[in-house]
Amino acid sequence: MEFELSDRCQELRERLLQFMDEHVYPAEAIYREQLLGSGRPHFHPPVMEELKQRAQDLGLWNLFLPHPDADAGAPGLSNVDYAPLAEIMGRSHIAPEACNCAAPDTGNMEVLTVFGSPDQKERWLRPLLDGEIRSAFAMTEPAVASSDATNVEMRIEREGDEYVLNGRKWWTSGAMRERCRILIVMGKTDPDGPAYRQQSMVLVPRDTPGVQIVRNLPVFGYVDPEGHAEIVFDDVRVPAANLIGNEGDGFLISQARLGPGRIHHCMRAIGAAERALELMCARASARVTFGQPVAARSNVQDWIAESRIEIEMARLLTMKTAWLMDTVGNKHARTEIAAIKVAAPNVALRVVDRAIQVHGGGGVSDDFPLAMMYAHLRTLRLADGPDEIHRRSIARHELRRAAPAPAEARV
Amino acid sequence: MEFELSDRCQELRERLLQFMDEHVYPAEAIYREQLLGSGRPHFHPPVMEELKQRAQDLGLWNLFLPHPDADAGAPGLSNVDYAPLAEIMGRSHIAPEACNCAAPDTGNMEVLTVFGSPDQKERWLRPLLDGEIRSAFAMTEPAVASSDATNVEMRIEREGDEYVLNGRKWWTSGAMRERCRILIVMGKTDPDGPAYRQQSMVLVPRDTPGVQIVRNLPVFGYVDPEGHAEIVFDDVRVPAANLIGNEGDGFLISQARLGPGRIHHCMRAIGAAERALELMCARASARVTFGQPVAARSNVQDWIAESRIEIEMARLLTMKTAWLMDTVGNKHARTEIAAIKVAAPNVALRVVDRAIQVHGGGGVSDDFPLAMMYAHLRTLRLADGPDEIHRRSIARHELRRAAPAPAEARV
Amino acid sequence: MEFELSDRCQELRERLLQFMDEHVYPAEAIYREQLLGSGRPHFHPPVMEELKQRAQDLGLWNLFLPHPDADAGAPGLSNVDYAPLAEIMGRSHIAPEACNCAAPDTGNMEVLTVFGSPDQKERWLRPLLDGEIRSAFAMTEPAVASSDATNVEMRIEREGDEYVLNGRKWWTSGAMRERCRILIVMGKTDPDGPAYRQQSMVLVPRDTPGVQIVRNLPVFGYVDPEGHAEIVFDDVRVPAANLIGNEGDGFLISQARLGPGRIHHCMRAIGAAERALELMCARASARVTFGQPVAARSNVQDWIAESRIEIEMARLLTMKTAWLMDTVGNKHARTEIAAIKVAAPNVALRVVDRAIQVHGGGGVSDDFPLAMMYAHLRTLRLADGPDEIHRRSIARHELRRAAPAPAEARV
Amino acid sequence: MEFELSDRCQELRERLLQFMDEHVYPAEAIYREQLLGSGRPHFHPPVMEELKQRAQDLGLWNLFLPHPDADAGAPGLSNVDYAPLAEIMGRSHIAPEACNCAAPDTGNMEVLTVFGSPDQKERWLRPLLDGEIRSAFAMTEPAVASSDATNVEMRIEREGDEYVLNGRKWWTSGAMRERCRILIVMGKTDPDGPAYRQQSMVLVPRDTPGVQIVRNLPVFGYVDPEGHAEIVFDDVRVPAANLIGNEGDGFLISQARLGPGRIHHCMRAIGAAERALELMCARASARVTFGQPVAARSNVQDWIAESRIEIEMARLLTMKTAWLMDTVGNKHARTEIAAIKVAAPNVALRVVDRAIQVHGGGGVSDDFPLAMMYAHLRTLRLADGPDEIHRRSIARHELRRAAPAPAEARV
Repeated sequence: MEFELSDRCQELRERLLQFMDEHVYPAEAIYREQLLGSGRPHFHPPVMEELKQRAQDLGLWNLFLPHPDADAGAPGLSNVDYAPLAEIMGRSHIAPEACNCAAPDTGNMEVLTVFGSPDQKERWLRPLLDGEIRSAFAMTEPAVASSDATNVEMRIEREGDEYVLNGRKWWTSGAMRERCRILIVMGKTDPDGPAYRQQSMVLVPRDTPGVQIVRNLPVFGYVDPEGHAEIVFDDVRVPAANLIGNEGDGFLISQARLGPGRIHHCMRAIGAAERALELMCARASARVTFGQPVAARSNVQDWIAESRIEIEMARLLTMKTAWLMDTVGNKHARTEIAAIKVAAPNVALRVVDRAIQVHGGGGVSDDFPLAMMYAHLRTLRLADGPDEIHRRSIARHELRRAAPAPAEARV
Repeated sequence: MEFELSDRCQELRERLLQFMDEHVYPAEAIYREQLLGSGRPHFHPPVMEELKQRAQDLGLWNLFLPHPDADAGAPGLSNVDYAPLAEIMGRSHIAPEACNCAAPDTGNMEVLTVFGSPDQKERWLRPLLDGEIRSAFAMTEPAVASSDATNVEMRIEREGDEYVLNGRKWWTSGAMRERCRILIVMGKTDPDGPAYRQQSMVLVPRDTPGVQIVRNLPVFGYVDPEGHAEIVFDDVRVPAANLIGNEGDGFLISQARLGPGRIHHCMRAIGAAERALELMCARASARVTFGQPVAARSNVQDWIAESRIEIEMARLLTMKTAWLMDTVGNKHARTEIAAIKVAAPNVALRVVDRAIQVHGGGGVSDDFPLAMMYAHLRTLRLADGPDEIHRRSIARHELRRAAPAPAEARV
Repeated sequence: MEFELSDRCQELRERLLQFMDEHVYPAEAIYREQLLGSGRPHFHPPVMEELKQRAQDLGLWNLFLPHPDADAGAPGLSNVDYAPLAEIMGRSHIAPEACNCAAPDTGNMEVLTVFGSPDQKERWLRPLLDGEIRSAFAMTEPAVASSDATNVEMRIEREGDEYVLNGRKWWTSGAMRERCRILIVMGKTDPDGPAYRQQSMVLVPRDTPGVQIVRNLPVFGYVDPEGHAEIVFDDVRVPAANLIGNEGDGFLISQARLGPGRIHHCMRAIGAAERALELMCARASARVTFGQPVAARSNVQDWIAESRIEIEMARLLTMKTAWLMDTVGNKHARTEIAAIKVAAPNVALRVVDRAIQVHGGGGVSDDFPLAMMYAHLRTLRLADGPDEIHRRSIARHELRRAAPAPAEARV
Repeated sequence: MEFELSDRCQELRERLLQFMDEHVYPAEAIYREQLLGSGRPHFHPPVMEELKQRAQDLGLWNLFLPHPDADAGAPGLSNVDYAPLAEIMGRSHIAPEACNCAAPDTGNMEVLTVFGSPDQKERWLRPLLDGEIRSAFAMTEPAVASSDATNVEMRIEREGDEYVLNGRKWWTSGAMRERCRILIVMGKTDPDGPAYRQQSMVLVPRDTPGVQIVRNLPVFGYVDPEGHAEIVFDDVRVPAANLIGNEGDGFLISQARLGPGRIHHCMRAIGAAERALELMCARASARVTFGQPVAARSNVQDWIAESRIEIEMARLLTMKTAWLMDTVGNKHARTEIAAIKVAAPNVALRVVDRAIQVHGGGGVSDDFPLAMMYAHLRTLRLADGPDEIHRRSIARHELRRAAPAPAEARV
């Protein structure tokens, strides 16, 4: 075993850390002011364009894209090399977009890279890679358990050279953004086919007639700039050429999309936890109660130590999972992917909650990014299937490996 | 021991439950619509006035007030008799105001009842008891640990027949309401006096020149209708007659105010937990995944059972504390008051978090009251001193009781 | 509600506390020496007979028996009045036997009092009440889940005027004692009858031919003086008159036996937790590390405070359950009985574990009673059905009460 | 990063796994029978000599020794290569001795290898490496907190060409073994010197006059075969040549001894946890309650999944720590060593406790190795300093790294 980061990763990491210090952190307050000042919750603050330009100049652009693409400025990093960078971006809620590494665009760009037709790439992938537009991914539905893809009720029917979509989606993250232009929509083209060949994905421009954004879903009171839309698709018609891959490929594509996305989410969660731990230490050192800095109290020291231990463990498990995906492939890393999906958000939530407690009233308000982090991290225990689904699949895997009670049990 | 509720309490409880079912729950959505429709976050929705009128008609008004007051419609209940009613009101965020039993008015009304001059009672207590105005309590300060009253930095200086206030407060709950008219402000009249005689409380009309509301503090992403204000007091002048009690009584009054307030907060937290548990059961019964209602899963059953057990235990401890306050007084119930301050919010947070998990995406949005409950309950682990302060005082009490290691220890 | 103990309970409580201080605690070391000195793990140390005599003289005898019995010295206490006394006895592992209030004799005596024939009472109940012999209860079987009485495989067949028993039991607590004379054995007389009428109970003298004690089961390495026997019944014949009640009454009797037994177990667990907390405080005060008593550390203070809070809550829930059993009967207190069966041992384990941690190496050895307490308490999470069974029944009860998702849910 | 085991490690791992399956597990019951049959708790069961011979033949001998030693059969593995083998040995309480990799001999052999004189090596190291004798390490003292080496009270005084030892030690593990011949004793040669130069270590043959073994300390109820001795040293005289290194080197040597020891302990703890998880899965699959295998219950599935996740994370953290020790040295891996000292035993305790719960009564008895594992693992949270000491040092390290609250905190 070898726990050193590669030289390439190490070099990018340092460049990115410097970018964070010099540009991203100072821009957080400006971003917020411009957002609030606009009076529009899904406004695109101009400071973001400055950050994006800077990231492009520094070669910190499209780092997530696994295949090198000179036009897109993408170095083509492995999961193991990208993961530590995703962690750093996770420290600030504006960093991923600044580097064009924000969900759900990353997953969408990957889908289009791998499964898109030349025309689809030209029309949608190119501007996404260039950071000119944004996108959304419409999969989850309010009426059914989203953790089970076979439950999808959205209908996609072929009529002539068009597909007609009817159904309702929610938690379509990113769809509220003013710059969002395109949705990838999962639905059923063949509801009577084999369970995992019923689904297809199609590209739906957001301004297509019949796409009705019903409302935005807040998260613990927050109206996230990207938004989480509830959308009704009412006889929405798109050209047949908007199908991604072939009819029936929907489930397969969704699976391919998930693996790297989970690494990204988990590493960003760990980055958020690291920042929360930093804030906790700083606050505990600065705050004096009963004649003693809070940092001198052994209960707070226990929280700090537990946070450090848990973060280290969650990071290592995520890195090992990234390495497995690079070496044996997403499919054979399934159990590990499920494990980090459970472990990382839970660890991060515990760390952030302790940090909130150390910050007192400031911790639950927006004087610090902690409450917002907590709200966002809490959704990760539900998105793409709740913890319970992933624990269940880990347990089933474990039980299959287990032999019947061995004779040696009676010692 | 005897665990039956008194006939009087039982009768009021049934009446209140019926009021909740018939009027309060149905009004929740209307309240929200009127609030959102107004475009003003601290607007007073008209439906609240209807609820208040109904509560008065039903004799469900000022139930919190420990001394009977015919004019105020207050039956004068003991803590033990009021606590189960506070629990029921805690089930809905609009119920306490509907019954004129909402913080911080309750504490303020009690302070004025016990310590107010006849003129103060006439001018402020009467309209508060009648539900015509609202009030706020300005105690916590951003620069110092609010858990230690001796830290207060607000200055209250006597000049002629006036008091002049200078300082900064935050988390002044209720001050943002459009109907808020009066603040009770804690500050130091004698910063060099004995530690617990430095503080005084004065009444400050909210429209007094020099009272500058700097901003509202959100809780997680919620802008609570009552608001949590950060306020600068800049040479604020009030008549000397606005002093509550005598100079130096501030700490004493704040202590007297705290005890019942904690019972109320804890019982409302338990009420919120009960509602969350109800919602969890209903959702688990209605939701089917992998061919089975979620309620049939043993992990969810464990959550339901643990929630039931923890709620029962927290309620009993709170009720015992209420009984102690009624029988031996707040001072001798100090340790128990500290215990429920820790136990009830933590229990409620665990229950609500489990309920959120069962609700999936709906749980973190505002389709259900769960995320809002969670955010509010999380503040209770910080308000009036964080958990750690209360655990510390419980431990010190316990350690004082403990003798040195007894000889019998070596068995 | 009223949380005062009755005068009668209060008076007995003080007498019992004095007995503990003056006689029981000082006898713990003697008991142990006599036991070890004998070289026989199930030896009856003579000091126990002295304690028993003293308890009888002081009127602290057979306190558990719900019906007054002058001959037996039993005052006939309600569950609410007995529970606080059981708690005190739980502080020392030798106290229950000293007061003739030790399991499983208590349950057996109660069964014989209620269901025994005059002859059975004369022959077995009398010497048990007099503390002359001990007994055991043979219910659990190694091959089947003991939490489900319908699983019992032991056969009890009528042949002429005898019953013939065949089967295997384990965890028959008390059967290893040298003074144990009689077993109450649960088995099936009618395996094809209705599910809850198949079982019967019979009295089996321990020296009956065919009763083969296979081995004693240790608990975390401890060979408990009472012993937990694995017993094979091989064509064991007893007179038909040894049947308790009627054929088919077994399940019914076992249910009646369980309720009060659980109160006793839980209150003793709480007593053990109280003693562990006392030891923890004493040790933390006496031990100095890094120039400071351990008791001054805030993490240890948190443990002490959490222990105090959890003990108080578990005690109140147990007392409420005792009160319910006294007022509405065991059957209607079923859910609460299940709740304390889960809550009390888990609380006590947490408290004892914290106390062990504060005691360092002494805590895991037998310099203090903590490791032994832990081992014993750990079995309570399994005996009479594991936690999971009880949580399941609480959840099912809760789910039955829950209506479908109410309309008001969407606020 | 690279998570593959080296070829050398992989090859030894497979050989060791085969040895476990073919020889060690089958010998567990024999070992126990021979031990019990001897009537001597610290007897050396003959089957162990057979296992040792087999291990030597297979090249599975002295694997722990970091420097290759052909005479000793030691391959000279790095920490990273040895750790996975320590894990496997941790699966059975008899495996470490079978491979001559048992504590405290490993640490003692390492100390003698690095710091021993040629004569000390000849006389004590050689027979230890050959598995002919055993040893003990006398460091902890009952009167003082063992986590602080400066507290040691044992006196070692030079008189002529002898050292004279006076003091009391406890938890001297291994000293009760019949084959134990030599103790390494830590004491103070210069109590007035600089804090970390007061201590020295000397070799004391166990049969030296004045070495009085007072008693064995049980762990929970277990009398471990190796024993944990309380020893009084009463004017114990050894030749001056028995000093290890120089006077004043004691603290330094103890630090050097600790690092690898902790890796070994932690990896063995993880091995124990793995075996407990296997047993849990096997039992859950085999046991049917309420018409369903226990393994089908989602709460048990959650336990299995959490166990898998926690074990993976603790293992990775331990492996990374081993790698750091190999690459940057024990001193720079201090924080990580502290972290695994906390993490691994706590993870293992949780896993074993869940396994006990699934096993019911069998879990707390000795039908399965679970209760014994639990008792042993519980001591690891105390030995070499309790969790709290290690958390404290992690937190202080973290706080030193933290800057004062950064400006960016106010977002």
